[in-house]
Parts: sequence; structure tokens; C-alpha cells
Amino acid sequence: MTLSKPSLPAYLDNIHIVLTRTSHPANIGSAARAMKTMGLHKLTLVAPNLMATPMTETPPPFDPQQPQSFTLPEESFILASGAADVLENARIVATLEEALADTTLSCALTSRRREITAPLQTPRQLVPELLQAAARGEQVALVFGNETFGMSIEEVQACNRLMTINGNPDYFSLNLAQAVQVVCYELFSQTDMPMTHLQQEDHAATHTQIKGMIDHMESLMHDVDFFRRRNSVRLMRRMQSLFGRANTQTEDIDILRGFFNTLKQNLKDKP
Amino acid sequence: MTLSKPSLPAYLDNIHIVLTRTSHPANIGSAARAMKTMGLHKLTLVAPNLMATPMTETPPPFDPQQPQSFTLPEESFILASGAADVLENARIVATLEEALADTTLSCALTSRRREITAPLQTPRQLVPELLQAAARGEQVALVFGNETFGMSIEEVQACNRLMTINGNPDYFSLNLAQAVQVVCYELFSQTDMPMTHLQQEDHAATHTQIKGMIDHMESLMHDVDFFRRRNSVRLMRRMQSLFGRANTQTEDIDILRGFFNTLKQNLKDKP
Repeated sequence: MTLSKPSLPAYLDNIHIVLTRTSHPANIGSAARAMKTMGLHKLTLVAPNLMATPMTETPPPFDPQQPQSFTLPEESFILASGAADVLENARIVATLEEALADTTLSCALTSRRREITAPLQTPRQLVPELLQAAARGEQVALVFGNETFGMSIEEVQACNRLMTINGNPDYFSLNLAQAVQVVCYELFSQTDMPMTHLQQEDHAATHTQIKGMIDHMESLMHDVDFFRRRNSVRLMRRMQSLFGRANTQTEDIDILRGFFNTLKQNLKDKP
Repeated sequence: MTLSKPSLPAYLDNIHIVLTRTSHPANIGSAARAMKTMGLHKLTLVAPNLMATPMTETPPPFDPQQPQSFTLPEESFILASGAADVLENARIVATLEEALADTTLSCALTSRRREITAPLQTPRQLVPELLQAAARGEQVALVFGNETFGMSIEEVQACNRLMTINGNPDYFSLNLAQAVQVVCYELFSQTDMPMTHLQQEDHAATHTQIKGMIDHMESLMHDVDFFRRRNSVRLMRRMQSLFGRANTQTEDIDILRGFFNTLKQNLKDKP
């Protein structure tokens, strides 16, 4: 029996992923997929480039006159696969100020502290505060900068928290979608959503069932005069301990006791 | 002043990322980059397809006769960018048994429990056990299946732990590189490597420095007869509390006190 799927906590919808000045529409799609996989649906795009530009070229600047009811290019949807709804409901704004207007907490993803008062914190450290605020109904934003240049000083200063993904001091290369994935994973992992719907039923054996099987084994060891000079108490204690820590299932006990019975029968029938 | 870079814990080299039957060489490169970003360098490839195959086609089966001192295709190196050393030192083997021969702990990344005795555990739950084993000098493997089909039942059964990345019960779409990224992030985050090399010096103000500034503010409030019917005790307590929780820096204190002094001077000079 598999348990029914749990529901996502509603407060996750108070958490907004904000991408500023993305250069490539495909990356918006990958980010949407990363978000939805971890139960997040609110995406805000600040002055994105919506033209398909080769990865090697600098995209044209954002045109604030372009209509707000925009359509993201095909490229974004291809990489979003099943997360098209996140793109369809994405909000597009001209400035980061607009994106953050209703938020109480806004985290700049950056690894440079620069002239900022907030201390650098890891996702692990910051997420409890973010989830508590979201659960109280406050709006929370996680802001990711441009693929190549990251966040500008002005963008960082518009935020009131600094979040840094720690890693190898000698090599650090996370692309935008991977950074979004790591942060969304950290958020989701701290919601403590159960995995019961993925689990099969557990039939862990009780202490008495394990002890019964161990006694059975000991009796068989006596039958074949296995102990001789061996310390039987210590030896059986080790066996009890081994099966105790192995998450032994009732089916395992049945197999072993059936095996011991067959051995006993065979020994008895010996000519 | 920025502190010098910390060194990676040597025991991270006892942790092996094992990719079984990858279809596309480019994904090997992305995985290498994800690993190195989180301080991991040991990559094992089990029966990979090393021919560049369009993502839409099924690759040819692995040829166990192909030389062990192989060269990964150009495609892998492009996506690895600065992590070429991980690819150059990668081990290639024909079977998962070979890959796991010297390991004590081996985790199958899977979300289906199937006919397996081990319980499903999250990366958060399993990583402490893995890091402890690695620190004792044991070899630990994290095994990721094929991009499309995941791990076979036989591959899962060759492992002694099941690791599942939990997520949205209604939509779950992590590609191979992102799954490797999330698991390596979790491993690295639990090493508790310091971020001191990224931080600027902190000049947090002391209790007395904040109290001095608050007293200065209060004196100014008196000067301009701000309190009137207001409860001055309660009001100043709030200000003390505000600056106490704001991680106020000594520079901030200097700015505010300079500002108060200037105000006082201006008030005194008033005709």
C-alpha cells in the first residue's frame, strides 16, 4: 500500500524567484523547471532579454515599452517542459524596485559582500527565517542576477539579505538554473514534506521476533556443536546486534527461520 | 582584509560519484563541473556511451572491449569547462560491481523503493553517515542511473543505501547534472567549510556603542521637545531593540552620531 500524495504547503506561494536581466530565454525555462520540481510557482522577471540571442553574443537592452502582457519565446517553453504554467503566470517588470515592492525579505544571491551591511549567509542558515515569514503571509523574494555578470551593486543594495552558496574555494561554477535548483532544494527540504507516498509499507521486525530468530539460530549452533571453545554469549550478542541494526523485516525473519527449520530437519534425518 | 582560502577536507576524495550507462557525453561534463564546484573530484563511469548521439536517439550499447585508457569526447570537455581534471582522472569500468568493489557504503539515487530492504532516505538524512565513513578512510559511492531510465533493479540492489531527493509530489523533473549538483551541494554543506574567505571584516557595534548612540538620539529628541505625551521609555526601548537586531556596524554608529551632532549644532545656531 502506498499512501496518498501530500499537498504542498500553501505558503510556498509567498516565495518569489526573481531573475534580473537574464540574457537567454532558455535559462528562464530551465529555472521554471527547477522551481516547480521543488514546489515553487511564483516567478518574476526583471527586464529580461526575450529575444533568442546566441549564448556568445551580448543581448540588446530591455525595452521598458514592451507590453507587460508578453509572451515568452518558444525557447523558454522548450526547456520548461512540464513547468509551462510557471512561465505563463510569470510577472514581468522593468525594475527590481517594482519586483520587491511588496516583499519584507529579499535575498540577493551573491558571493561578494562589497559595501553592504548584511552578513553573508548560506541557504541553510537563511531558509528558516524565509519560511517563517512566508508562513506568516509575508512576501519573500530570492533574487538571481544576470548569467554572466551576476547582480549589480545597486541590485544587491535593494535587497535586505545576502545569500551565498558555499563551495570549492578554488573552483566555483554554478549556472543560473543550477543556482536556482540548489536554493529551491534547500527551501523545499526545510518544509519537511513527508516522503510517505514514495515508500512501500514497512514490516520492521520487533525485538521479540528478532530474539526468537536468534534463539532459533543458537539452538541450531548447539545441535552442530558449533560453540566448542567459543564464547557463546558474546557470539550471540553480536548476532542480536547485527540483526538489530539491519532494519530486519518480518519477511527476513520468516526466511531465516524457515532455513533453520529445514537444516534441523536435515540433521535429524541424517543416517 | 579578507582571510585566506580554507582547504578542502582531504576525506572528500573518498567520495565517488558513479554514473552508470550515461547516454550523452555532454552530461558527463556537466556532472564533472557540478562535482568540482562542491569540492568532489572522484568520478567513475560505468559502461558509458562515449559517442556523441543526438539527444533524441538511443545510443549504441557499451563495448566492454574498448580500451580502459580512453579519451572522453570533446563534448564532455566543453561542458566541463574548468573541471577537465575531473574528466581526465575519471575511472571507466564495464560493470557497477567493479565500480563498487572497494566501497563500504553505496547509495542508489532512486525514488522507487521496489523490492529493497533499505528505507528511502533524503540526502540530508544520509550525508552524515557518508561523511563519517569517508573521514574514517572508507570509500563511499553515490550512484546515478541513466538519463532517461534511471537505475535498473539490479543496479539498485548492488547498493546498500537508497537516497531520494524529495520534491513536488505532482511534478518532478531533475536532469542528471542537477541531481548530481543537489547531492554534491548537500555533501559540501555538511562539511561546514567556513566562508571566511568571502567575508569582509565585520565591525559589529558593541552594546555600549549602540547605547551611546541611542542616548545621543534621546538627548536630541528632548532638545526638540519630541516626547510631549509620548512614552519616552517605551519609545527608546524600541529604538535600542531596532539597532540591536540590525547587526549595526561601528561605521553606522559614526554616521548617526555625526548626524545628531550636526543637528544639535544647527539647532543651537538657530536665531
